[in-house]
Amino acid sequence: MNGADALVATLHANGIDLVFANAGTSEMHVVAALDGVPDLRPVLCLFEGVATGAADGYARVSGDVAATLLHLGPGLANGWANLHNARRAGVPVLNVVGVHPDAHDRLDPPLSSRVSQLAASLGGAVTTVHRTADVPAAAAQAITGARHPRAQVSTLLVPADVAWSPFGPAPRRWPAVAAHEPVAPAADDVVRAIGWLRTGRAALVVGGSLSASDLSRAATVVGATGARLLVETFPTIMDHGASTPSPERIVYLSDFAVPQLSGLDRVVLAGAAEPVGFFAYPDLPSRLLGAQCQVLDLCGNGADPATALADLAAAAGTGPGPGGATPPPAVPSGPLTPLTFAAAVAATVPEGAVVVDEANTGGVHLYDALAAAAPHRLMTLTGGAIGFGLPAALGAALGSHGPVIALVADGALQYTAQALWSLAREDLDVTVVVVANATYDILRLERARLGPLPTSGASHLLTDLGAPVIDHVSLARAYGVPARRVESADELVTALARRAVGHTGPELIEVPLAPLAL
Amino acid sequence: MNGADALVATLHANGIDLVFANAGTSEMHVVAALDGVPDLRPVLCLFEGVATGAADGYARVSGDVAATLLHLGPGLANGWANLHNARRAGVPVLNVVGVHPDAHDRLDPPLSSRVSQLAASLGGAVTTVHRTADVPAAAAQAITGARHPRAQVSTLLVPADVAWSPFGPAPRRWPAVAAHEPVAPAADDVVRAIGWLRTGRAALVVGGSLSASDLSRAATVVGATGARLLVETFPTIMDHGASTPSPERIVYLSDFAVPQLSGLDRVVLAGAAEPVGFFAYPDLPSRLLGAQCQVLDLCGNGADPATALADLAAAAGTGPGPGGATPPPAVPSGPLTPLTFAAAVAATVPEGAVVVDEANTGGVHLYDALAAAAPHRLMTLTGGAIGFGLPAALGAALGSHGPVIALVADGALQYTAQALWSLAREDLDVTVVVVANATYDILRLERARLGPLPTSGASHLLTDLGAPVIDHVSLARAYGVPARRVESADELVTALARRAVGHTGPELIEVPLAPLAL
Repeated sequence: MNGADALVATLHANGIDLVFANAGTSEMHVVAALDGVPDLRPVLCLFEGVATGAADGYARVSGDVAATLLHLGPGLANGWANLHNARRAGVPVLNVVGVHPDAHDRLDPPLSSRVSQLAASLGGAVTTVHRTADVPAAAAQAITGARHPRAQVSTLLVPADVAWSPFGPAPRRWPAVAAHEPVAPAADDVVRAIGWLRTGRAALVVGGSLSASDLSRAATVVGATGARLLVETFPTIMDHGASTPSPERIVYLSDFAVPQLSGLDRVVLAGAAEPVGFFAYPDLPSRLLGAQCQVLDLCGNGADPATALADLAAAAGTGPGPGGATPPPAVPSGPLTPLTFAAAVAATVPEGAVVVDEANTGGVHLYDALAAAAPHRLMTLTGGAIGFGLPAALGAALGSHGPVIALVADGALQYTAQALWSLAREDLDVTVVVVANATYDILRLERARLGPLPTSGASHLLTDLGAPVIDHVSLARAYGVPARRVESADELVTALARRAVGHTGPELIEVPLAPLAL
Repeated sequence: MNGADALVATLHANGIDLVFANAGTSEMHVVAALDGVPDLRPVLCLFEGVATGAADGYARVSGDVAATLLHLGPGLANGWANLHNARRAGVPVLNVVGVHPDAHDRLDPPLSSRVSQLAASLGGAVTTVHRTADVPAAAAQAITGARHPRAQVSTLLVPADVAWSPFGPAPRRWPAVAAHEPVAPAADDVVRAIGWLRTGRAALVVGGSLSASDLSRAATVVGATGARLLVETFPTIMDHGASTPSPERIVYLSDFAVPQLSGLDRVVLAGAAEPVGFFAYPDLPSRLLGAQCQVLDLCGNGADPATALADLAAAAGTGPGPGGATPPPAVPSGPLTPLTFAAAVAATVPEGAVVVDEANTGGVHLYDALAAAAPHRLMTLTGGAIGFGLPAALGAALGSHGPVIALVADGALQYTAQALWSLAREDLDVTVVVVANATYDILRLERARLGPLPTSGASHLLTDLGAPVIDHVSLARAYGVPARRVESADELVTALARRAVGHTGPELIEVPLAPLAL
């Protein structure tokens, strides 16, 4: 048994049974150690951003640590953007990163880099194992870093010599990290929150990972207090669809969010942060709430949103029950538009599916349309680093063992399109719907704030994806994923409905949409 | 005129006429400013690793600063791996990265991250502009950072409010950064080096950017002194081919490099670092030179390798001239093997082409075969972060205005395959040859050191790319690049030869190769 064996054994003893991997020479002993533990299965990703996005998606659906295996500084850097999204989602991800032995690194070989500093720039825990004997403790410490009360991205740097050196016999038990115990909000805060929510110009803003019970409790609270119920723009994962209360979503663009929130004097946060503009603008405030609005964060002490909502519901007493049954979504017909696209997805989403939304501008109607759909779980782009959707769908499919619908904008798809290959290799029930408007449409919109949108020059060149047009059917086939292009809402409904009955491997559906009219 | 206009004007005044870009909302004022300076043309890349790899390739062929425009922390992170390669190449790259205004960032919006720390982890200069009035000076400082005596990756962080705020009227002149003046090695060192090289167990090791004159001077030196002439394993860019001396290349694998170098007691470095193993191994030294070998780095004082080689040649006096004319490369026939692949490339490379080598294990014979080819320039994977080849070919084609041959392993291609789209959009004369063995072959080899290679389990799963097989013809077509697959050396020669006469847009050629027999 060597250090790599001890590492793999410790991960496995802590319930990690999957690792999204793109290993290299410096991780070869870890790879060999994985051969000895078939219950800890590696999933090969052709690019590290796929591995980290998959870990994020896996952690969101499973609620527990997802692991990656990455190669030195460049591997971690390639995974950084989706780790940023995972950090913003507040889910536990453990990166195992092979690095050079200290003595080798000091000679400045080609792949030497400031990997500790790079890891620290992710904002979570960074643990370096210096001695083979310390591997189990260091691995446990890194898992603890991921299972932080506010879950984190935790990075374990494993020098190759630590991995290859003899560890000695296995101990009787490998160190096990206890799951984090939920923390309750301060009782005083709960009482104060209820008082605030009864003032008539108040809202409860929920966010993070939201189960149907969490949302029902939130609905109870606002029913009893008369407050508004809002959800952050980009929750981690939420139960959604018919029979689950669907809170009003805070609008992405500050232009609309400011008037949406302007009537509020008191805001109670449960799992959400105070609403802040995604970007800064010269003529719009960064804080989306009015200057007069007071904010109480029930989870500011590290409390669990589920516990906070349960405590709030208990304190609020009962109010009017939820409204009548939601009518099922109408089946759309006719041309493909953001509205008919959203309706087609809503009309066909299989019960229990995970829906990954990275459709961006093309997906503007999805949240509302899906409120009437079969019960599902919705994941969104928490950190704004695009290239999340396809990898997250890979992880979600492996974590949920159920169908996944990935709604991905054509621009976003290009950051991590290699995930298609892993979907095919793992034969996952993932339907990838590519919303193809052949532009960076959000950037056209942002550019149009500054004056008429030029039809040539830099502003055109840097927002146009239409020359050449990307053929997503060819792209999918390159990776062994069957694909088709639809030309109408009717064809999209047919294609999606066919997926819902018995097709299990991945498929890609290209949905052409016109860019926004500006 | 706003801060963004001042930034673009300063870049342009310093000779930057191209920027490899993947911008977002926080860079929108910079994009709008580019509209006003048509001589500074943006090249859209669908992923930041394409932009940074292209900047690296552009800087290698042009010898001067290449610029990127990137979006916040995730954009910089996505570009990090190829910036690592650029750093290792010692070429000047300037990243302009849009970030949030300070006041906005303090509210911790979704895209907020530790971007300064991330930039610092690249090891080069990091400059943040705090006030709009400081934009020209800060941009000049960042360009100075890139034009460091040992060229660096320099990053300029531009908060959005700095970009959008009024700058006032343009100054009479924008600050201009002088090109770096070459530094000469210490005269004593040159004398000592010549003495060393005459000892009979000595080598001159060259590296970095090597022109034909540099290599001729190096050949003169070893001719006059009787020393061996070696080139580092991964030089930045070198003139190569018939009529240019082709130094013996230090072998990539330590197993072979140690015996290759074992006869040396004195090594003189000119532009190369002391040879160090790419990776550490339990049973091999990290330093590839024997313990008895003394090392003299002529460029240790920041001296320019070209000047060092000129000074050495002047001090060495004349020796025997170069050998007779190299016979032209033989045209191969028959099955595709690493040898016939290399021969086919050598037999067809157009004079003046840039050859980008990221063929990895499939390219093991390229360097030697190309020594007899038409004169060309050869670029290699300096930093070991794969995903370099295709982006570097994009940048090299834009920087050289001539034909480029990109030799890319199938595994490596998957890190930055999106570069194909930019090749099509820019209609560049780039021939992409994908060496497709459907494995991470180098990892199979590394894994085989540890014992018999398993045919299932983790070691197999993490090195096998054959399930599903990637269809590179479909992949290229997805991005508007014509493509074909060849099945023999004869077909490869025909396909490459056809490219050399008049075809100017990009084309991809898939070359199936068997994995190494282990």
